[in-house]
Amino acid sequence: MAMKKKPVTGMKDILPREMEIRDYAIGLIKETYKTFGFTSVETPAMEHIENLSSNQGGENEKLIFKVLKRGDKLSSAVNKLVESGAADGEEGVNVGSLTDSGLRYDLTLPLSRYYSNNANDLPSPFKALQIGNVWRADRPQRGRYRQFTQCDIDILGEPSNLAEIELILATTTTLGRIGFKNFEIRINERRILKAMAAYAGFKEEDTEEVFIILDKMDKIGLDGVTEELKEHFDAASVDKYVALFSGLHDKRSVAEGCAFLMDTLGDFLDPEIAKSLEEIETAVNASKEAEFELVFDPTLVRGMGYYTGTIFEIAIPEFGGSCGGGGRYDHMVGKFAGHDVPACGFSIGFERIILLLMESGFQIPNRAKKVAYLVEKNYPVEKLVEVMNQAKAERKNGKEVLVVRRNKNAKFQKDNLAEQGYEEIVEFFNR
Amino acid sequence: MAMKKKPVTGMKDILPREMEIRDYAIGLIKETYKTFGFTSVETPAMEHIENLSSNQGGENEKLIFKVLKRGDKLSSAVNKLVESGAADGEEGVNVGSLTDSGLRYDLTLPLSRYYSNNANDLPSPFKALQIGNVWRADRPQRGRYRQFTQCDIDILGEPSNLAEIELILATTTTLGRIGFKNFEIRINERRILKAMAAYAGFKEEDTEEVFIILDKMDKIGLDGVTEELKEHFDAASVDKYVALFSGLHDKRSVAEGCAFLMDTLGDFLDPEIAKSLEEIETAVNASKEAEFELVFDPTLVRGMGYYTGTIFEIAIPEFGGSCGGGGRYDHMVGKFAGHDVPACGFSIGFERIILLLMESGFQIPNRAKKVAYLVEKNYPVEKLVEVMNQAKAERKNGKEVLVVRRNKNAKFQKDNLAEQGYEEIVEFFNR
Repeated sequence: MAMKKKPVTGMKDILPREMEIRDYAIGLIKETYKTFGFTSVETPAMEHIENLSSNQGGENEKLIFKVLKRGDKLSSAVNKLVESGAADGEEGVNVGSLTDSGLRYDLTLPLSRYYSNNANDLPSPFKALQIGNVWRADRPQRGRYRQFTQCDIDILGEPSNLAEIELILATTTTLGRIGFKNFEIRINERRILKAMAAYAGFKEEDTEEVFIILDKMDKIGLDGVTEELKEHFDAASVDKYVALFSGLHDKRSVAEGCAFLMDTLGDFLDPEIAKSLEEIETAVNASKEAEFELVFDPTLVRGMGYYTGTIFEIAIPEFGGSCGGGGRYDHMVGKFAGHDVPACGFSIGFERIILLLMESGFQIPNRAKKVAYLVEKNYPVEKLVEVMNQAKAERKNGKEVLVVRRNKNAKFQKDNLAEQGYEEIVEFFNR
Repeated sequence: MAMKKKPVTGMKDILPREMEIRDYAIGLIKETYKTFGFTSVETPAMEHIENLSSNQGGENEKLIFKVLKRGDKLSSAVNKLVESGAADGEEGVNVGSLTDSGLRYDLTLPLSRYYSNNANDLPSPFKALQIGNVWRADRPQRGRYRQFTQCDIDILGEPSNLAEIELILATTTTLGRIGFKNFEIRINERRILKAMAAYAGFKEEDTEEVFIILDKMDKIGLDGVTEELKEHFDAASVDKYVALFSGLHDKRSVAEGCAFLMDTLGDFLDPEIAKSLEEIETAVNASKEAEFELVFDPTLVRGMGYYTGTIFEIAIPEFGGSCGGGGRYDHMVGKFAGHDVPACGFSIGFERIILLLMESGFQIPNRAKKVAYLVEKNYPVEKLVEVMNQAKAERKNGKEVLVVRRNKNAKFQKDNLAEQGYEEIVEFFNR
């Protein structure tokens, strides 16, 4: 069979320049998160197909790369399929029996499984750091790949807002050290979203649909949202609802926003919820390291249905759209463990961060000096030993030393090396 | 559907203590290899099924995790399969049409594809470092998993033995810095293996079978090898062959071994091959950093059929069996590129290294100090701000600071933290 040079559809080979930035960012991320007490964990790339298809993953469940069963199990599944005999040309034969596992589409579901599987060996609360690849069989498009790296921190077992405070401080400190400033962390609360909808008069069973429309605010604006809501819901409710957002429009801080909502929503909003969100704002603002603004965003929805409380998102001015986000999901671990465990997570949009660094011509600070030794062909081994020892000494001092054969016409070789960032080129001749 | 807590069969969740050692080792490996001029590369976890099934992977090709096609391609493949109608109960229906990709079983084949796909954007020679997961649907057994990490360095485009010298120096320096000493690097040459077989009188088409038996030397000894060879081959050839190994028995260095072979094999051995291997020995011994012995091992075969020249293996006394290895494979890139590119690689047995470190009770040197802050429940936010700022200052100094809620009865909590290595525990009360 012919060998194919290109990667599989929608996936990419990562070239050295990008890898260097990725390695640098991962190093800094790990180092920073560790000072916040997060510990690395790793789960397998594959998960049971039952777990991946459990309605925790929303739209991502349609994008699973499924792995074929093996050996007798596969033969038996195929034979059953053949015997069941789909009629000629019939579409959509059920192929569920052919697979028993798939590639993970995120790191949150595997972490919930991991925690419930290993709770006895883990501290409580447990602060987890995961950097790993995930796979989604999305339609390939520019800048979006079917394999990409996610970078998540999660705190499991901490019911109080200390989890949110630590997650926001750790994430923003990391972003700041990578070099981002003047970004925003937008924050909201699922229960505030619900209180606003209830106050406006929407029925509880309609709220998810209301939020899906609200989530389009970024794209279609308040007028667009109003119009679309009115297509589906009672105009009086929509007007009352929209008035809330108008009232909140100039309230950028949680304190201002919650004061307005406490006044307006009355009994629909539990004061403890507002108080907790205000505490997060106070604590984060008073002890943050990075330059960013924490902004109350009552239109923030976050798509994943599993969120139960605080939700947040990173907005970087250089980049339209979200560069990461997270929130509280107090019921997911319970699906595995049988009893709920409070949980909250924050994910950096790793691929977007890297893209931004690449596009901005990012230079790694204090990068090791690159030195190239060009050794003439047929250089005698007694003298090569001296070259290797010189390289050894420079390498010990942290320099990057490349020892290669010198091409006969070395000009092209030296030009290339200079282009790759070699600041010093030493030639060794046998004379 | 019920959620499953365990990982998929044969794969494992990696717990914090192991992850910490893995992160440490990976950090040190990357740092050291980079000083030798290696640059990180990454390829997708999935590869075209045609590439994975191209006879480059030997036995591993039987262990591929295959990924189902998606959408219309899958429906169409399944319908064809159903229409072709395997008879009732018939075994072994051809399922090849259901899959178009699989998970990589090593990093060498993907690197060869990567290099031929991106050669225009890569320097020559190209020194690649890959640390990544691979997957093999092996029978699960103690200490062997279906997902594991490989750690490879390769030099592509360097025909001379400078490649072997650099690979051995880089790998051994790295092992030494991780803490291993008094290990061995066993070295041999595929062409010396062939010369010895030819001298003994084996036919060229029999040599692979001869080597498969020779490869059992570790397990069944010279007598066992002799006996098994005699079951298949001419006794005179076997005796002549075995006499070579007896003659080489006390020759531990390449210089001694090659001197003996040059004397004995005569024209069967190209003097350039012996000279090149001796140069590797001279250069490595004169400029190595780690404490290890380079040992000539004429019985070293290395299973992979793609090797074309030098082969080597790491033997660590604490661990029976190989802890990594590699060699020259000058023809693999050509399968993709259409023209051969000299290539040589060295792989550290990463999982075995980690296992050895875990079992030896390895402590990470100069590990950051771990401090825990226990904050009483309902601690007022004005005072929490002070705690967070104190944590900020300590974190900036590189300490790992865990800020958590203090349990009502904190004794158990504090005992647990002490067990996790927290050297300092500070309690904050609202008084």
